[in-house]
Amino acid sequence: METDFKSNINLLNNTLSSMLEDRYSVAESTRLNHARGEDIFDPVLPIGVAFPESTEEISEIVKVCNTYQIPIVPFGMGSSLEGHVLGVQTGITISLEKMNKIISTNSEDFDCKVEAYVTREQLDEHLRDQGLFFPIDPGAEATLGGMTATSASGTMAVKYGTMKSMVLGLTVVLPNGDIIHTGGRTKKTAAGYNLTNLFVGSEGTLGIITEVQLRLVPIPENIISAICQFENLESAVSTAQEIIQYGISIARIELLNADQMDITIKYSKLDDLEPKPTLFYEFHGSKNANKEAVDLVEEISKNNKGSQFKWAKSTEERKKLWKARHEAYYSVKALEPNARVYTTDACVPISKLAECISFAENKIREYGLLAPIIGHVGDGNFHCFILYNSESKKTHNLIREFSNILITKTLELEGTISGEHGIGINKKEYLVKQHSDNISLMQIIKRNVDPKNIMNPGKVIDL
Amino acid sequence: METDFKSNINLLNNTLSSMLEDRYSVAESTRLNHARGEDIFDPVLPIGVAFPESTEEISEIVKVCNTYQIPIVPFGMGSSLEGHVLGVQTGITISLEKMNKIISTNSEDFDCKVEAYVTREQLDEHLRDQGLFFPIDPGAEATLGGMTATSASGTMAVKYGTMKSMVLGLTVVLPNGDIIHTGGRTKKTAAGYNLTNLFVGSEGTLGIITEVQLRLVPIPENIISAICQFENLESAVSTAQEIIQYGISIARIELLNADQMDITIKYSKLDDLEPKPTLFYEFHGSKNANKEAVDLVEEISKNNKGSQFKWAKSTEERKKLWKARHEAYYSVKALEPNARVYTTDACVPISKLAECISFAENKIREYGLLAPIIGHVGDGNFHCFILYNSESKKTHNLIREFSNILITKTLELEGTISGEHGIGINKKEYLVKQHSDNISLMQIIKRNVDPKNIMNPGKVIDL
Repeated sequence: METDFKSNINLLNNTLSSMLEDRYSVAESTRLNHARGEDIFDPVLPIGVAFPESTEEISEIVKVCNTYQIPIVPFGMGSSLEGHVLGVQTGITISLEKMNKIISTNSEDFDCKVEAYVTREQLDEHLRDQGLFFPIDPGAEATLGGMTATSASGTMAVKYGTMKSMVLGLTVVLPNGDIIHTGGRTKKTAAGYNLTNLFVGSEGTLGIITEVQLRLVPIPENIISAICQFENLESAVSTAQEIIQYGISIARIELLNADQMDITIKYSKLDDLEPKPTLFYEFHGSKNANKEAVDLVEEISKNNKGSQFKWAKSTEERKKLWKARHEAYYSVKALEPNARVYTTDACVPISKLAECISFAENKIREYGLLAPIIGHVGDGNFHCFILYNSESKKTHNLIREFSNILITKTLELEGTISGEHGIGINKKEYLVKQHSDNISLMQIIKRNVDPKNIMNPGKVIDL
Repeated sequence: METDFKSNINLLNNTLSSMLEDRYSVAESTRLNHARGEDIFDPVLPIGVAFPESTEEISEIVKVCNTYQIPIVPFGMGSSLEGHVLGVQTGITISLEKMNKIISTNSEDFDCKVEAYVTREQLDEHLRDQGLFFPIDPGAEATLGGMTATSASGTMAVKYGTMKSMVLGLTVVLPNGDIIHTGGRTKKTAAGYNLTNLFVGSEGTLGIITEVQLRLVPIPENIISAICQFENLESAVSTAQEIIQYGISIARIELLNADQMDITIKYSKLDDLEPKPTLFYEFHGSKNANKEAVDLVEEISKNNKGSQFKWAKSTEERKKLWKARHEAYYSVKALEPNARVYTTDACVPISKLAECISFAENKIREYGLLAPIIGHVGDGNFHCFILYNSESKKTHNLIREFSNILITKTLELEGTISGEHGIGINKKEYLVKQHSDNISLMQIIKRNVDPKNIMNPGKVIDL
């Protein structure tokens, strides 16, 4: 058996080397670079890393792996937080990094097709002249293929939705090497099972997403950003809730709690602000519509004792604000050399958000953790950035304990264990807790779409 | 074998009768009432019709059917156009009509949970006092369970999306009788495979949807409706295209072609209008935002030589306009006693819409069909209402020929064979044409979720 496996590995290495030449690497440094994402796990080095250039080439690689029953981990930017791209010791990793072409854009129909490794930034750069942009902004520089695989969302979901609603179609290489094209270019379709949305969020366990057809939106005529600071967390969250409940059109509404503001003010040099709970707002629309929305939001904020309501007066000021927001994760990481950050991802109905965030803040104090909070509060989703030393087993256990308690509370409040980061390896047991009655159907799908269990095995669900 | 089957039927009838008493009927009239939808097929009478009152009762019925391998057709309002609810001679039909309760509404979070038979009208009536409504309006009086099963959309999808994006979660009875709850109450979730959207559009072939968790939206502060008439179809469609391309916020933009207007003017008594291609508009927003949108739309319409730009000045006038639009299907049906209407459902990228509709109009003339056209033009979706005499085999063949040609053209234009009506029995061969490379994966899912093929067999795909 052992010998069989070893000789299979040799055969695999030889086959892939002759197929891809220097685009298949067994060098330790390359394997180490593809051994994990931004997660809390120890790196696991794959046998080798392939760098295919086309869907057809991926199909060929998958067929080889299928023959030798070799696991495959698809790898984009490696920004996953839950262990999605952790290597498999007995398998290979397929890096999508050579699949970075924008295949087509249709400015008349607001759609485009990209290869999996194209990032949002790259796409937006390309689209700028056409007056369009892609509105899912997960914060991290991630690939659109990876964002599709994990059903990402981020700061603008409150207005534009998530990958679930922005992906129109996909090219996917199935575990047997077959290439399929799901969905299409139309704004809607009722043509058979919704395979597109089966792959969105499937985390590489059902196939490799190689191309994505995306819906785009027009760059708004007018963009206004503002921030408002509050005396306490409840007032900030109530403000966000009321804005949503009044149906005011807002493109972003992001919370940074007092701890996070303290760190952000120093890291991103926002010296005129105070370390208080703060909402970052952004409005996309016509000048008049924005003016109207802004007036209402200012009124609601003031009714909740919001102070220091500040408009970003220039594009630079606006960019500085959102840069600070996006740097939140890194600002925490920078607090200690060699420290890591574990991120929670609870999401609850908005009416339960104040209770859930307060609960988290209290538990953070109780456990003595350093864990500032940011929230996509318009969607009821928030993250605790828990700073920890990866060497300390004790901290590890403490974090898991805190995480368990927060998950239990989240489920009590009719929330979900993951708003946008997915399951990976890290949240498998929580998935069972939330959706115990769904697991068997998920297993049926996984087992029959991938009967040899070669596609990102051990992620999302156990079989 | 024959005897086995007959004794199974007897056992089934006895079991269901003792379980449901008078809520299981084998009366011919009841079976006839549940033998088909609004489709072109001859009715097929099921063995009997069950009227369960709860998810648990449906689960029990399904378990019995699973044991005896008896097919099940789930039945809502029967408004399906593609043969989804056509009976199975060797099976039973489960009517959802006793599952008509609104289970809960959360006005703070804009969501609600309903049993499958609740209609949009019933829900909106219930929600009115809370300032909310459900924005998917398929035209026909349909159940929300049926709309979920067929991935319905309709006149307001251009602003609010389709069932795909408005369904947050589901209760489903699986083919083995297991009850599962997918999704939940949060605005977004990345917790495992997206089972919710696997069932949306699955047309009863993977399980019976018994409860639906829905997203709601606030009743807009201001609603404005208007119509504009055009000299030719191209101008009307160009106007719709430009409105979408400018990113103007519009809630409805519906086209009636000259033939349809001719019929509608008479049927719905819109005497001040002419039989010309006409756009019906509706705007949802604040007063100012609507004013702004309306001015832009009026300008675009006039640039395309739109005349008779008319605002509905009162709520009554507005309701009259939209009633006329909704009556379009019935206005065609009323032209001939005992005639039926076959409806096409092509959907293309908006930039291809003028070409596709013109193609359809020309072919309709060429074939000598009576087939007015209405379109959800903001989504690139349009329907030809083909009037026909169900007795005439010749007309049947002519319609199929026209339909084939239109489908071929639609696919050439990167469109989809179904924008919103689904596949049912009627479009199975077209689905293979559009998604030949997807069929095998759809079959894998169907075969393994429903290994005995008892759930609405013969619909969507052949096995």
